[in-house]
Amino acid sequence: MTVETTPARAPEEILPSFVAGSWWTPEQPEKMADIRDAATGDLVCRVSTSGLETSRAVDFARNEGQRALGELTFHQRALRLKQLALHLGENKELLYELSDKTGATRKDHLVDVDGGIGTLFAYSSKARKELPNSNVIIDGDVEQLSRDGSFIGEHIYTRLTGAAVQINAFNFPVWGMLEKLAPSLIAGVPTIVKPASQTAYVTEACVRLMVDSGLLPEGSLQLISGSARDLLDHLDYRDHVAFTGSAGTAQLLRAHPNVQYEGVRFTAETDSLNSAILAPDAGPGTPEFEAFIKAVVQEMTVKAGQKCTAIRRTIVPSEHVDAVVEALRGRVEARAVLGDPRDARTTVGALASKDQQTEVSHAVQRLMDAGGEVCFGGPDASTGSADADAGAFYPVTTLKFNNARTPEVHQVEAFGPVTSVLGYTDIDDAVELAALGGGSLVATVCTHDPLIAAEFVRGIGSHHGRVHLLDRDDAKTSTGHGSPLPHLVHGGPGRAGGGEELGGMRGVKHHMQRTAIQGTPDLLTGITGVWHRGAAARTATTEAVAEGKATHPFRKSLSELRIGDQFASGLREVRLADIDAFAESTGDTFYAHTNEEAATANPFFPRRVAHGYLLVSWAAGLFVEPAPGPVLANTGLENLSFITPVTYDDSIRVTLTAKQITPRETDDYGEVRWDTVLHNQHDEIVATYDVLTRVAKETPAWV
Amino acid sequence: MTVETTPARAPEEILPSFVAGSWWTPEQPEKMADIRDAATGDLVCRVSTSGLETSRAVDFARNEGQRALGELTFHQRALRLKQLALHLGENKELLYELSDKTGATRKDHLVDVDGGIGTLFAYSSKARKELPNSNVIIDGDVEQLSRDGSFIGEHIYTRLTGAAVQINAFNFPVWGMLEKLAPSLIAGVPTIVKPASQTAYVTEACVRLMVDSGLLPEGSLQLISGSARDLLDHLDYRDHVAFTGSAGTAQLLRAHPNVQYEGVRFTAETDSLNSAILAPDAGPGTPEFEAFIKAVVQEMTVKAGQKCTAIRRTIVPSEHVDAVVEALRGRVEARAVLGDPRDARTTVGALASKDQQTEVSHAVQRLMDAGGEVCFGGPDASTGSADADAGAFYPVTTLKFNNARTPEVHQVEAFGPVTSVLGYTDIDDAVELAALGGGSLVATVCTHDPLIAAEFVRGIGSHHGRVHLLDRDDAKTSTGHGSPLPHLVHGGPGRAGGGEELGGMRGVKHHMQRTAIQGTPDLLTGITGVWHRGAAARTATTEAVAEGKATHPFRKSLSELRIGDQFASGLREVRLADIDAFAESTGDTFYAHTNEEAATANPFFPRRVAHGYLLVSWAAGLFVEPAPGPVLANTGLENLSFITPVTYDDSIRVTLTAKQITPRETDDYGEVRWDTVLHNQHDEIVATYDVLTRVAKETPAWV
Repeated sequence: MTVETTPARAPEEILPSFVAGSWWTPEQPEKMADIRDAATGDLVCRVSTSGLETSRAVDFARNEGQRALGELTFHQRALRLKQLALHLGENKELLYELSDKTGATRKDHLVDVDGGIGTLFAYSSKARKELPNSNVIIDGDVEQLSRDGSFIGEHIYTRLTGAAVQINAFNFPVWGMLEKLAPSLIAGVPTIVKPASQTAYVTEACVRLMVDSGLLPEGSLQLISGSARDLLDHLDYRDHVAFTGSAGTAQLLRAHPNVQYEGVRFTAETDSLNSAILAPDAGPGTPEFEAFIKAVVQEMTVKAGQKCTAIRRTIVPSEHVDAVVEALRGRVEARAVLGDPRDARTTVGALASKDQQTEVSHAVQRLMDAGGEVCFGGPDASTGSADADAGAFYPVTTLKFNNARTPEVHQVEAFGPVTSVLGYTDIDDAVELAALGGGSLVATVCTHDPLIAAEFVRGIGSHHGRVHLLDRDDAKTSTGHGSPLPHLVHGGPGRAGGGEELGGMRGVKHHMQRTAIQGTPDLLTGITGVWHRGAAARTATTEAVAEGKATHPFRKSLSELRIGDQFASGLREVRLADIDAFAESTGDTFYAHTNEEAATANPFFPRRVAHGYLLVSWAAGLFVEPAPGPVLANTGLENLSFITPVTYDDSIRVTLTAKQITPRETDDYGEVRWDTVLHNQHDEIVATYDVLTRVAKETPAWV
Repeated sequence: MTVETTPARAPEEILPSFVAGSWWTPEQPEKMADIRDAATGDLVCRVSTSGLETSRAVDFARNEGQRALGELTFHQRALRLKQLALHLGENKELLYELSDKTGATRKDHLVDVDGGIGTLFAYSSKARKELPNSNVIIDGDVEQLSRDGSFIGEHIYTRLTGAAVQINAFNFPVWGMLEKLAPSLIAGVPTIVKPASQTAYVTEACVRLMVDSGLLPEGSLQLISGSARDLLDHLDYRDHVAFTGSAGTAQLLRAHPNVQYEGVRFTAETDSLNSAILAPDAGPGTPEFEAFIKAVVQEMTVKAGQKCTAIRRTIVPSEHVDAVVEALRGRVEARAVLGDPRDARTTVGALASKDQQTEVSHAVQRLMDAGGEVCFGGPDASTGSADADAGAFYPVTTLKFNNARTPEVHQVEAFGPVTSVLGYTDIDDAVELAALGGGSLVATVCTHDPLIAAEFVRGIGSHHGRVHLLDRDDAKTSTGHGSPLPHLVHGGPGRAGGGEELGGMRGVKHHMQRTAIQGTPDLLTGITGVWHRGAAARTATTEAVAEGKATHPFRKSLSELRIGDQFASGLREVRLADIDAFAESTGDTFYAHTNEEAATANPFFPRRVAHGYLLVSWAAGLFVEPAPGPVLANTGLENLSFITPVTYDDSIRVTLTAKQITPRETDDYGEVRWDTVLHNQHDEIVATYDVLTRVAKETPAWV
């Protein structure tokens, strides 16, 4: 479905919020803020939330939102994300057009709009691949807490029962929302989005597209366009607040009594003084040097440097400071054209607002006052044909510091197209300089040497949420220093806010509570929907199946199969001739199977033993139901552990139990995981593993 | 080594701290506190830290401590824990004797002293089983970030570079220290312990035993016996503070500017209003009812109810309130004997101090004032032969509330042998009552019905850090409602502090930073010490090995083998006769291997295909080096995924690469994980998996 335009709205009108299932604007607006086009200064819209009862939003999330999302499984929610992504993709031109007003270039829109949509796709796909199609995630292994197996423990994640409040920064009105929304929606936690006012009209348009699509479960997404007012007053430990923005605002929010005393789960992602380090092996003339210069200029110019991940500190060997500055200058002069994003020649857009322009000016001045020498750009430089009075333009700027330990360069962030170059003496010195940032979102280390990479990561790892290794081999394929990816965590310690977002399913779990559960296999099976060894099973033996008294579980389609459906074979004896024949046919003549003397000398074997591969192959022969049926394929095998060796004249039997059933939302089959145990004639456990299969939802017609 | 006694110290003397490598007491003690025997009121010792420069402790941890621990791997640190546990075990009588003065009974000492030692053993064993023998933990799977495999990403944990400050409660002077110390030491983070003053003499004795053992790396453990003074003023985002105690103190600490603004990692585990729920199916006369009564009485009497996990709210079907109260009364009357722990008849000891006795009295009074009716025990009850004036005794007490939603019963904690019985109408009502605790460490749900268990856990899961399921089948084997286990997380949301401790290796990771790393397979191999597919390898082909030009990696002992050592076989053709023979010999006659028509109809296969088990068996035949050598056994196989089917007349080849090498600290062999890839004649990937082997450190003599 393609939407032609956003609703006709005069610039004087107030940007609506979406609360408790309907669009809302204040009846008597107060404290209105004018939102202006970043490049031209024209009025775009106004924002005000005066009179908004934020408790309505929280109640709606906790009740209607929780209820509607609770009716869906992880996979069903993930599928909605994909459908939303497709819908936004069809309508992205509309978002591009609005985004032009934010000062961002079309290339920048790829990061924000397409990046946001891509995040929905990635989460949709990963969730359906990595999560069960249910509402409970199991974390880690089962722990045996009693010798007899009657008391076991494990960990589960269940969703928070409150709201996910997401407070976003102005620089990514679309991605900033969607990267937080994707994991919270999959977790099943209703979301209240509060974008930064400066660019909230883009977020509003994106929310409107999603609401109008009809794909969002009721109450799963609400929008506050403007001040969040007293929203935090209504939250407690059931709720989750994810904030992106300045360290100062993060501190204010963190100090809220409900965060301090009521256990509101609060996570912050704040701008940090990220660094890029040119390693000693990556001097001028190397392919790494070239890649490094490209990366730094890229981070200075994309979004006009308004990225929380941008490179504020360019840390290079002291002897290469001048070469780095000159290379940066050359590339900037050749490529950076400031201007209105609607002008095709523009490669660097405006800052998001006149306020931001002022802030960046002040920050650069503080860096200069502290001893920073402007190499190019800076307060007196030209912005070319871009009108820096009407629009929020700032020249691409590089400073250098003679004293690399000047405190300001590690503390003062110029949130624009600005970087400072610092020299280091050796790797320890470079590590210390990077750490002076007091915790950062990301660092690039540019080196082609694995040992140097290891030394750097050992030193800077715990100061960073992400480390990007750049060299000749990934310079072309790297997704870049500044790009958080849905697969990897985004966040960092200390100055970077101390939080963590994204990281694939890690981000989903941030919206859930981890709980240890302890009890019998039967009760833990009931709670998790996953069969636990020792729990009740419905056993079909070889004999019962042969006599027609029981159905082999391989003859059951997904619609008939239940966890706990079990097949138990009889014993089959392993003779020495079988081991010999297996060695002969497979070529696996390892001495433990073929050399009695050496096998006996081996500390783990009594004498010649059967191949592990023989045992699992025979097990398949014991459990298989050969005729065509709903079982379509064996796709793999996990956690195979050989426990007791099997020597000739021993016998083995196999027990196979339906452990987990994962129907696919978009296919006519699903995955079944079978708990598999081999025993010997003494009932000792020989081997354990999971067999993975694809099973049809209904027995196929061709069977 | 058995130590005879603690150093002779007069009760008037000041309890020493252990700071920067030596024992310390104030030269001019001020603000001294008298510590008294809980049962007799006799002076035990005094505490004061006046004049202590806490910055010395922080500096020593960050420098000497980090350095010494950094020289050891996870396994080496884990082995130290085991040795420490053995040493403490040999000397535990000394700790018992001192613990008698805390009011705890000999049975209570099992929880504190033996429980603490057991935690060291458990961590030592789990760490060596579950962690690599290195300094970097990989978290989760490798993410393909570029199509050509040149740019990949994953997550690692590296240790924090600061100090682990551990502030403990008075009730578990040994376990409380050791359960926090075990994970921080394994992580490699130096620890500063600050026990509660009331029972700090037991902790001091335990630290002294560990220090004197010589097993602790320098700077890895320091002790502050008394006020921690300005310790938090010296911490920042590199440091970790783990607090156990009251919610009020947790709030004070959390409000510290260094926690608020400087990113100190702060986690709290506070007393909560834990509940035990008798499910509707577990009424009087059922084995569950009996188990429930035993569990509640157990939690009221162990440590005289001074456990952060104790059952404060006993939530039962309304119609069974009186039956529950009577059953509790019966069991308490039959078994609870208050008295001096040194008296053999005693089953319930004293509270830890007269202050605690006053606090419990006040809390019970508040509950009574709010409408709680004392069923037995309470302010007017007898403490039997225990002298409640000299010693801190309090009678075992049960209250009931007509109005189960009385706010006080969900908020006021009587930290002693006290529980309140509340009636519920149905499961939803019981879930709501449990949640009124505002977040708890643990709840017991007593039910024999998996569906009821699931319904309860869905409802209360996200309000709890742990849920203990009790029924007839685990009543005897359960480790109990109140016992945090090293394997399972301990902590809870909201009122319980919002933190998490223990949980096996999860607790280790709490002392580390998770960092996303992105780069080439070569660089990520260098950083992690684990070979990544696509990284450089030293390949030995079948031909090169046959011609003596290369060494098969199976001929290398652990001392010779390096990650990246690789074996690459030639192709072997699969004929239809091979598939038939394999089906015949193994018995695996599944139609995809034996029925051309059905195999062709199957959506995933082109026609009859080779068994997956045939492929991995043949792969073993292709990669094996049959003669006796350093490879001792194939112990398992992980993450086997069949990707491209192999039909007759296809060929397969195998590439096997040493991926991870884990020498054991206490055996003459270790584990080697081999990355294994099968390709077909078109170089398509047929299957991928890890082969797990044991390999000798040196080629054994019997070879």
